[in-house]
Amino acid sequence: MPPTPLRVAIVVFDGFSELDTFVTFGLLNRLSAAGWKAELVAPTARVTSMNGVTVDTPQPLEFANEAAAVVFAGGLYTRAIAENSAVIDRLALDPLRQLIGGQCSGTLLLARLGLLADVPAATDTASKPWMIQAGVRVADDTPFHARGPVATAGGPLAAHYLATWLMWRAAGLDQATQALNQAAPVGLRQDWTDRLLSVVRPFVPDR
Amino acid sequence: MPPTPLRVAIVVFDGFSELDTFVTFGLLNRLSAAGWKAELVAPTARVTSMNGVTVDTPQPLEFANEAAAVVFAGGLYTRAIAENSAVIDRLALDPLRQLIGGQCSGTLLLARLGLLADVPAATDTASKPWMIQAGVRVADDTPFHARGPVATAGGPLAAHYLATWLMWRAAGLDQATQALNQAAPVGLRQDWTDRLLSVVRPFVPDR
Repeated sequence: MPPTPLRVAIVVFDGFSELDTFVTFGLLNRLSAAGWKAELVAPTARVTSMNGVTVDTPQPLEFANEAAAVVFAGGLYTRAIAENSAVIDRLALDPLRQLIGGQCSGTLLLARLGLLADVPAATDTASKPWMIQAGVRVADDTPFHARGPVATAGGPLAAHYLATWLMWRAAGLDQATQALNQAAPVGLRQDWTDRLLSVVRPFVPDR
Repeated sequence: MPPTPLRVAIVVFDGFSELDTFVTFGLLNRLSAAGWKAELVAPTARVTSMNGVTVDTPQPLEFANEAAAVVFAGGLYTRAIAENSAVIDRLALDPLRQLIGGQCSGTLLLARLGLLADVPAATDTASKPWMIQAGVRVADDTPFHARGPVATAGGPLAAHYLATWLMWRAAGLDQATQALNQAAPVGLRQDWTDRLLSVVRPFVPDR
């Protein structure tokens, strides 16, 4: 039986953080044999990262509305984008059928989309004042937090936790473990995998 | 006094691994305020990654010959590239004035360039048979190894170690620590930074 395709939209804008984006992208695509496909999604056909890498983004922003999971990477201009209705109004996400994650300043977009409500959110130090101004409860010193289908991660390398949570939630613990083992440093696989799983475990519901 | 520019070439080809490439790229560019600039370098003006992301690579391959540090990312076709003299002959690296790193199958290119000699090399499981066939001493179960100015890393997330080693070697422990702290997950910064430093510490010469 062919695997069920699981499409993931990683939403990026000009100024996007390469670590936020490609740690998640690379880890999730480790599940390609299981039918996962993570793709970059943007309002324009090309975007340029915070350190000057220009990437093609053939998938339109609306792809996010149909994806099984959506991740908002952080970036230099996220606060301005959160105030840009012409962009935001193209997004119609649904936590009843989608897993949704925000990374660093990407959590501002979750707030703008009304997805955080009163849930505490992880974010990075630079984004914290804007989060508070947007009425979000910031979880201090927290690398990762999730309630139900919405997760937030703070600090670029916390992308490892966001990817781990998505894999565990949508593909199960065995597949997540296998994917992390394949990506982890040789000789330290179990150590890396155990550490990543331990941080997200409190946020994965018992089945 | 303006910081001394330090240019890093991250060499990629079609089929490149996003984790190998952008973990290193993102971490090294955390030192941009100190004058570091990591750039993607390729034999063509655009390359497409193993999971289908097309990126612009305006810097020519020869940029690597002038950079202070050069990293070879792993990818799907590295073995074929190692046998392609039209590509390899454009590279003239010099370990007397450059730091040089290979990641996963990227270590094959270090072997092809004669940079490994009899130094044991870290690599990933898939690349190991090709490394042995190329006459390289593979260091089993080793996430990271360096002798002098040449380092190898095995497993995509071992890119964290390669970047840490490069920063420590070229910018010193304080700057490396600061950059890692900024990138690490909120609330777990010291934990991540200490772990990354501890793996590469045996390979950094006393000053």
